[in-house]
Amino acid sequence: MLPSASRSPLPSKTLITLLLPIFRHSSTAAALPMEVTASEETLRSNLAEKQAAVEAQAEAVRKLKAEGAEKPEINAAVDALRALKVESSAVARCLQTVISNNGGGGAGDREAFRQAVVNTLERRLFYVASFKIYRGVAGLYDYGPPGCAVKSNVLAFWRQHFVLEENMLEVDCPCVTPEIVLKASGHVEKFTDLMVKDEKTGTCYRADHLLKDYCKDKLEKDVSLPAEKNTELKHVLAVLDDLSAEELGAKLKEYGIVAPDTKNLLSDPYPFNLMFRTSIGPSGLSPGYLRPETAQGIFVNFKDLYYYNGNRLPFAAAQIGQAFRNEISPRQGLLRVREFTLAEIEHFVDPKDKSHPKFVDVADLEFLMFPRELQMAGESAKPVVLGEAVRKGTVNNETLGYFIGRVYLFLTHLGIDKERLRFRQHLPNEMAHYAVDCWDAEIECSYGWIECVGIADRSAYDLRAHTEKSGVPLVAHERYPEPIEVEKLLITPSKKELGIAFKANQKMVTEALEAMTEAEALDMKASLESKGETEFQVCSLEKSVIIKKSMVSIHIEKKKEHQRTFTPSVIEPSFGIGRIIYCLFEHCFYTRPSKSEDEHLNVFRFPPLVAPIKCTVFPLVKNEKFDETAKIISKSLTAAGISHIIDVTGTSIGKRYARTDEIGVPFAITVDSTRSVTIRDRDSKDQIRVSIDEVASVVKEVTDGQSTWADIMWRFPTHSVSQADED
Amino acid sequence: MLPSASRSPLPSKTLITLLLPIFRHSSTAAALPMEVTASEETLRSNLAEKQAAVEAQAEAVRKLKAEGAEKPEINAAVDALRALKVESSAVARCLQTVISNNGGGGAGDREAFRQAVVNTLERRLFYVASFKIYRGVAGLYDYGPPGCAVKSNVLAFWRQHFVLEENMLEVDCPCVTPEIVLKASGHVEKFTDLMVKDEKTGTCYRADHLLKDYCKDKLEKDVSLPAEKNTELKHVLAVLDDLSAEELGAKLKEYGIVAPDTKNLLSDPYPFNLMFRTSIGPSGLSPGYLRPETAQGIFVNFKDLYYYNGNRLPFAAAQIGQAFRNEISPRQGLLRVREFTLAEIEHFVDPKDKSHPKFVDVADLEFLMFPRELQMAGESAKPVVLGEAVRKGTVNNETLGYFIGRVYLFLTHLGIDKERLRFRQHLPNEMAHYAVDCWDAEIECSYGWIECVGIADRSAYDLRAHTEKSGVPLVAHERYPEPIEVEKLLITPSKKELGIAFKANQKMVTEALEAMTEAEALDMKASLESKGETEFQVCSLEKSVIIKKSMVSIHIEKKKEHQRTFTPSVIEPSFGIGRIIYCLFEHCFYTRPSKSEDEHLNVFRFPPLVAPIKCTVFPLVKNEKFDETAKIISKSLTAAGISHIIDVTGTSIGKRYARTDEIGVPFAITVDSTRSVTIRDRDSKDQIRVSIDEVASVVKEVTDGQSTWADIMWRFPTHSVSQADED
Repeated sequence: MLPSASRSPLPSKTLITLLLPIFRHSSTAAALPMEVTASEETLRSNLAEKQAAVEAQAEAVRKLKAEGAEKPEINAAVDALRALKVESSAVARCLQTVISNNGGGGAGDREAFRQAVVNTLERRLFYVASFKIYRGVAGLYDYGPPGCAVKSNVLAFWRQHFVLEENMLEVDCPCVTPEIVLKASGHVEKFTDLMVKDEKTGTCYRADHLLKDYCKDKLEKDVSLPAEKNTELKHVLAVLDDLSAEELGAKLKEYGIVAPDTKNLLSDPYPFNLMFRTSIGPSGLSPGYLRPETAQGIFVNFKDLYYYNGNRLPFAAAQIGQAFRNEISPRQGLLRVREFTLAEIEHFVDPKDKSHPKFVDVADLEFLMFPRELQMAGESAKPVVLGEAVRKGTVNNETLGYFIGRVYLFLTHLGIDKERLRFRQHLPNEMAHYAVDCWDAEIECSYGWIECVGIADRSAYDLRAHTEKSGVPLVAHERYPEPIEVEKLLITPSKKELGIAFKANQKMVTEALEAMTEAEALDMKASLESKGETEFQVCSLEKSVIIKKSMVSIHIEKKKEHQRTFTPSVIEPSFGIGRIIYCLFEHCFYTRPSKSEDEHLNVFRFPPLVAPIKCTVFPLVKNEKFDETAKIISKSLTAAGISHIIDVTGTSIGKRYARTDEIGVPFAITVDSTRSVTIRDRDSKDQIRVSIDEVASVVKEVTDGQSTWADIMWRFPTHSVSQADED
Repeated sequence: MLPSASRSPLPSKTLITLLLPIFRHSSTAAALPMEVTASEETLRSNLAEKQAAVEAQAEAVRKLKAEGAEKPEINAAVDALRALKVESSAVARCLQTVISNNGGGGAGDREAFRQAVVNTLERRLFYVASFKIYRGVAGLYDYGPPGCAVKSNVLAFWRQHFVLEENMLEVDCPCVTPEIVLKASGHVEKFTDLMVKDEKTGTCYRADHLLKDYCKDKLEKDVSLPAEKNTELKHVLAVLDDLSAEELGAKLKEYGIVAPDTKNLLSDPYPFNLMFRTSIGPSGLSPGYLRPETAQGIFVNFKDLYYYNGNRLPFAAAQIGQAFRNEISPRQGLLRVREFTLAEIEHFVDPKDKSHPKFVDVADLEFLMFPRELQMAGESAKPVVLGEAVRKGTVNNETLGYFIGRVYLFLTHLGIDKERLRFRQHLPNEMAHYAVDCWDAEIECSYGWIECVGIADRSAYDLRAHTEKSGVPLVAHERYPEPIEVEKLLITPSKKELGIAFKANQKMVTEALEAMTEAEALDMKASLESKGETEFQVCSLEKSVIIKKSMVSIHIEKKKEHQRTFTPSVIEPSFGIGRIIYCLFEHCFYTRPSKSEDEHLNVFRFPPLVAPIKCTVFPLVKNEKFDETAKIISKSLTAAGISHIIDVTGTSIGKRYARTDEIGVPFAITVDSTRSVTIRDRDSKDQIRVSIDEVASVVKEVTDGQSTWADIMWRFPTHSVSQADED
């Protein structure tokens, strides 16, 4: 990851977010066979029609069966029923989206939507401010039981999708890191944000935040702003990330920006290092930091990992763990926090060969990409076929492209809406000088487009930095099929002769001779051979000296080499797990009216993979026999490894559904007999009837992802929903 | 967890380890039908006999089948074969144990054994010193790929065994913790070790370590030590943990103990706080620490968690996460480190009812327990039936007992040898004053008996401490079936009258009156009623004052109460995951001679549950068809979610087995045909032949724990081992 704080994958890209303030409330709608502009009313009547059609067709099927019709005829009718159900579900989903988005897209709607999500998340203990009873600490959050389960599920799937499927070498390194490591990586020097202090109270602010807030406020609210000023402020916003401390300070003064809370004067901006500092051991002499990323733990172990992999490239190492950033003023809830979980991959590859054998598996994927050219032209992201992007060179190489594809699959599989996911390429001024190409997976939520995964080809920078600082060569070798002969230029200054000629300056002349480029040395060799001496500029002496033939020997040596030694390039996908989870919360949240239409019920449409609890078991009414049956089902679910809750309170079944819809439980088993039960799907509210013996295996099938609800639904009789979902 | 560093569950109990320096090399042997004293020779010939018997019986079975004998006859022969194989395996395991222990038990053997384990672990990258290329940092370790996989497996099983099976509420809180939380818990004041400094170089040492080393050294090496001195030193070792800074300093002076490296004089001992300190936010005004345990994150969330659980007790919350201790001088490899993973459970329970509905499930377990009485009597741990221990009151209550049983099941299921696992009760002077009863799960390894899990009934201490500091009542309620009438004593001082009488002292007198016990107040009431005034001692004024009837009203009020409000007790099992894993490494490690008997091969006998990789796929010889078959099998293993490696190098099959035995891969699939393959069991080296279609499901069956190898073995034909395991 990049050492500069404002350029690393996690902080949001202020620049781009502001240049292109696109907030499209498209949601899943665009992927459905419906116009996103369809009004709520239209959708409602459409849905009613479809549901009636489903009912009628179901009745027709029952009739055919009762009449003992021929199998092909029944099958055709069942197929038609299935198709109608799929259509009906699509309309229902579309309606949900329109309702939850309120059809709008303004800042007010976004805020209201976010408030609804966050209220639900906090009330149901997905997360809470840490140390709340002590009034909390900004930027620190606890995951409560459902949030913790979602996080576990996301990490388990990450491990499955990346570590296991790609045979990566997973490591686990400490958070406490000695200073020397972070000096080598550049974090001690460069991992800073510019800060200003209220001159009287000492309160700290991020200098760029104050300037940004000022400009946005002016642009939004000052209707009398002259066109010229308007352009200027927009320009300031565009270059905000590139301003030096001096430039930022000058702008703050020019605009008369003062401390927002007290209106006191502000100090000049100065860099504040974002790493939490501590001291290792009792002496107080070994400074250390909490790691700002997990990547360094992998780089310093490169040598061992390369050996572990049989000294073969390419290979990838991976790490999941906590990372820390002592933000100056944390904002945006779970998106900018002081402690967070990162999952990082460092894929080491020969810089001469960045092809990827499995690229074909992702080449046909098509999704929103936002390459540099589109950004510069002020356009928005467009669907692109990944194979095309690599073939055209938009994406630098196959390996980088492969990971972009895998990240796309990972995020959409979790439940991220593909219409609100784009891959944005870094602009040249965003990338570190050594980076070859960088793409961020950005997810749109109520805060705008948030970078959640950074995928960067960082060339050989990190391994070289640690090689230099530690003196341990972090390199790879490629054996030649046969040894090859190479020519090497040898420059051998004669210290004795140089000493006689230059006395105290001998060392500097020697060093200058040794530092000659190959061309310079060959020039000198020619001059010495033809003239016996030559003039030579010694920079450190700031003058020229005369070099004679006796003072230096320059010749070409032939050597056999058996292998090529090189520093591998690293391609780094880096995942901000908390950010992905927060966006997932927003993408999965919607509200729907209660049956009596007098209140809105909250639902998280988590896919079974990430749902904190996979199913519930509800005895329909308080009854000893049903409770007993519920316990038998619970046992079989435990045996199948399915997390579930039993609710035997006498509360109405509709209330119990609503309570668990709100934490995103995908399936509810209602016990209304001692032989068979119903399974209800959270989103469609469809119900099927399944025997007690089968219920655990059916739920396992859908939660493990072997079957979809649609598959299951037409294998079992549909259950009339009249008595359920009441409230 | 206890706030005092030297008393918390993780640091080793120096006291007991030294009082009872028992190192028994019993290993698994005692559980086998063999004398542990059986020599290697005897065992070898015994094994050869058993193996011959197995071969003969297998031949007999084949013959019966070929002759078309009756089914009952065949079944009887197969049963006999199975019994012989079990016997043969038992002898083989016993031999392995004897070989790896070298039959001895001295300090030298222990060191040699440990060296062998640690060398293997480091060479195969189970773990390495962190930041090795920068010469490392004491007490910080990285888990490499196999270690990281073992850790993941242990944590996944922990989650399954505790969180899922017991429906615990898992949370995930930050490592960075503000000072106020750790002031409330007592860590800021008491989480210290006593330290001395080399007066010239400033090098730091743990004062108790220096004294301990001195005493041990004298006792072990000074043969001329007078009996009196001997007793004295043993006494010092016994009370080491209880010595104050002054007492420790006096002893160091008395024995003339100096800095071990320089022989310089030492400073007086002074407390060093073991928490890593840092600063939260940019102001430098908010001190924070890295949490020394995960428990506090649960306690501060008690109110929300209780609500989440429907305001019902008992319930348990759990957390897995990093914890940090800035050890003065880390020793003992993975056992005493500066950063480690803890898994903690806080089970909240009504102090009036500590019964546990599932205690019956563990009551019949029998294992080594080491109650206080046995320790005081200088005896060793004895097998005890858990139900008995609770019934007799040895273990304070059912809930504590239930967790002891569950911890036993957890550890032995992981592969901890039950003969080297004991539950040791804390001595009264080891426990904090508020603790009701504490038991440590101690595992014996080459370092002695190491506490790996602490299971403590901490009463209401933690919740009370945070209630006091935060002002937020962390309490539970129990609704009475019917409201009950209670009498409450009300003391109402008249501030006005007291102010007139005592002026500036009014406040202190008021406070003293309010602080009276019920008995004192009733006495005063009687005196005031009879005499109109009474003498009253005010401690804060250090004198008595005269209280008149008008100055205070004391009366008894009757009130209806609808519920009981109380602070729950907490029972805390706390797991040092790194310690458990290290002990597991030692318990699973053994060596066996190579076929040619010229070298010892290392093996980790990890159960499939914890094995870092579940199986290997080896084409017997380099051959395109076999490689193709290996790939097909690999795909089916991936689909079944089984981690595996393919090794298509032409290396001899024996070498490939040896290489993967050394990282504990339990099963090896050798591809020697395109229709069927062999599966080899790591420990018995038995092989069976299975068809390509079945192989993934068979491996899944044994690695998921649905079947044992013994079950599997007699369902499939045994494969002759002649060509395998060569080297």
